[in-house]
Amino acid sequence: MPLIVQKYGGTSVGSTERIIAVAKKIIAAKSQGNDIVVVVSAMSGETNRLVSLAKEIAESPNAREFDVLLATGEQVTISLLSMALAEQGCPARSYTGGQVSILTDNVHNKARILEITDKKIHNDLNQGKVVVVAGFQGIDVEGNITTLGRGGSDTTAVALAAALKADECQIYTDVDGVYTTDPRVVPDARRLEQICFEEMLEMASLGSKVLQIRSVEFASKYNVPLRVLSSFEDGNGTLIKMENDKMEKALISGIAFSRDEAKLTLIGVKDSPGIAAHILTPISEANVEVDMIIQNKGKNNTTDFTFTVHRNDYAKALNTLTNLSKELEVKEILGDDKIVKISLVGVGMRSHAGIASTMFKTLADEGINIQMISTSEIKISVIVNEKYLELGVRSLHTAFDLEKV
Amino acid sequence: MPLIVQKYGGTSVGSTERIIAVAKKIIAAKSQGNDIVVVVSAMSGETNRLVSLAKEIAESPNAREFDVLLATGEQVTISLLSMALAEQGCPARSYTGGQVSILTDNVHNKARILEITDKKIHNDLNQGKVVVVAGFQGIDVEGNITTLGRGGSDTTAVALAAALKADECQIYTDVDGVYTTDPRVVPDARRLEQICFEEMLEMASLGSKVLQIRSVEFASKYNVPLRVLSSFEDGNGTLIKMENDKMEKALISGIAFSRDEAKLTLIGVKDSPGIAAHILTPISEANVEVDMIIQNKGKNNTTDFTFTVHRNDYAKALNTLTNLSKELEVKEILGDDKIVKISLVGVGMRSHAGIASTMFKTLADEGINIQMISTSEIKISVIVNEKYLELGVRSLHTAFDLEKV
Repeated sequence: MPLIVQKYGGTSVGSTERIIAVAKKIIAAKSQGNDIVVVVSAMSGETNRLVSLAKEIAESPNAREFDVLLATGEQVTISLLSMALAEQGCPARSYTGGQVSILTDNVHNKARILEITDKKIHNDLNQGKVVVVAGFQGIDVEGNITTLGRGGSDTTAVALAAALKADECQIYTDVDGVYTTDPRVVPDARRLEQICFEEMLEMASLGSKVLQIRSVEFASKYNVPLRVLSSFEDGNGTLIKMENDKMEKALISGIAFSRDEAKLTLIGVKDSPGIAAHILTPISEANVEVDMIIQNKGKNNTTDFTFTVHRNDYAKALNTLTNLSKELEVKEILGDDKIVKISLVGVGMRSHAGIASTMFKTLADEGINIQMISTSEIKISVIVNEKYLELGVRSLHTAFDLEKV
Repeated sequence: MPLIVQKYGGTSVGSTERIIAVAKKIIAAKSQGNDIVVVVSAMSGETNRLVSLAKEIAESPNAREFDVLLATGEQVTISLLSMALAEQGCPARSYTGGQVSILTDNVHNKARILEITDKKIHNDLNQGKVVVVAGFQGIDVEGNITTLGRGGSDTTAVALAAALKADECQIYTDVDGVYTTDPRVVPDARRLEQICFEEMLEMASLGSKVLQIRSVEFASKYNVPLRVLSSFEDGNGTLIKMENDKMEKALISGIAFSRDEAKLTLIGVKDSPGIAAHILTPISEANVEVDMIIQNKGKNNTTDFTFTVHRNDYAKALNTLTNLSKELEVKEILGDDKIVKISLVGVGMRSHAGIASTMFKTLADEGINIQMISTSEIKISVIVNEKYLELGVRSLHTAFDLEKV
């Protein structure tokens, strides 16, 4: 019998009414001849309520006790969902992370899963029961309750699917799949039937917030087919799986973009070996993550050095560079936090030349100036002025025929 | 170092403000040189909130899952209290019932404690930590979460005190001790410094709702000194312990009463062996508990049979008797639900004659007619018309000098 792990997020189980609706969805999937294991988050609002209680007591609550507190959120949901299933005649059994058990390391508030014991779950499935597991939480080797950090319920679902060798891990959310790009920017954007892990990782990290990156990495590592679906509408969603022959036919799967960009340029830095490290080490020490980097040789043995950071870190990065400028004999520091990044993503570009030139020509035809370019095996990213975001994404979406299947 | 188990009920931990105040109380007790283990209930209102959620899903929620749900209530409190202790510089560690572990049978919603593993607690105490344990919950041998039923937190505290061989089990509540009688009826009522288990059991079962009967029985069985104190005021409360020489000097410890009484009388029942069982078996089968019973021989080989029940069961009992009346050839059925029970309680009456006659004379002097009398080794109870409750209790309180130490 096929085994499916389903995960329902906080909005999907945000009220007892919705929990009853989720129970109906589960029973429908089971009646199609599947074994079902369900992972749930806390009811929406519940985690924030618990965090507020803790903050009333301590600004930085004790990490171990914070996990004990937060873990109650999912425990409430597993019990209510199991009751709803039982009430509809479907035998069900709930498990906390500790009961499964989901063994983690002992890093409270952001623990990592080490091992899952699946004996109880298999026993229950063999007896025809639906198994309901609390997401986001586990237990360390000494029996302390741990949590995986926010968004960790996706990871629980994927880890369970891997441990149980499930046929599919379905992530139910408030969107009905992964799109070629954000439909709010391109109304023609099309839901993808499937996409491979690497593409999904590039899409996710570039701003498609459908899935937690960590859970996609996990699914990829253990080769667990992931499916993103809406918990409010029926539909097939998007299947995310290992790259295969059929998939390679699509040149470009989607267009990701990020508005959270800013860039900094050092003009006329004295060029010497190790200069990049000299500039970027203090930036990294200030906890600023650097994304794209360009270095151009200038005149008189100097160089121009440009990099991008998250827009929230712009002021911090600028400040760090200003402190450095004397030591590095910098002529000028330029900054721009009105930029965006647009990226084409697709495993197909590996085997096809000409993707980049089509991209650059399309943008040039619209009069969009490209400020920086970065490429990887399955991605080409450009930095442009933020006013060109919508125009750029739309013209590329059309140029690569993404609205067509 | 003396070991004290403290238990704080729902009102005592009803807000984060109160939890912080409880943490201060604990630290004060610890700084007096005691090891402290704390048992807490769910924050007041929380259990009702959880029950409402369950009722939105099912009229009779699945018993196993109901326990998973309810157990979160105490889990929230143990984490918040441990955070508050840590925040005030006192190292603390929380444990759910399953983590301790508190092993129970598998009767969900009203489980009984079988065994407590105290290894983790002793380790923590040896390291100078305060241990905070969730009341009301445990785990069965298969790892399922169980609850002890409402009021079970007192039982958890006493059981822990017994397992840890604690010097005292302190129950913090919203009253400051056990009184000679209800101060709302007798303003002169006096807080008792100490009282023995047997007396407390009689007081509790007769309507002094300070402590759960089950926890007093438990404390008595394992000889754990219990102390009832206010969590809002300072004071010594009342110590409840095994009977000893000093205690025997008090003839009467207190006057308990119950307004929840009703009586039924069968007039002219044909007297034959087994008639009492014949009457009371159907009553018991209707789930009605019988308290006092009197049988008086009447004329012509008939008998009059009277018994009392809880006032809520009056209609049910009357109905049962009416159905029986033909079979038993009863002349008449009388009923009265306007009666109350007043009881003198004291181990001292064992060795002193004359208590009963003083009681009856005192009531007679006030013109109070006694309808029924029942006695045990340490208790004399009378049934009187409910209009005499206050007058009866006050006159007895004065007659036995209970306002004086």
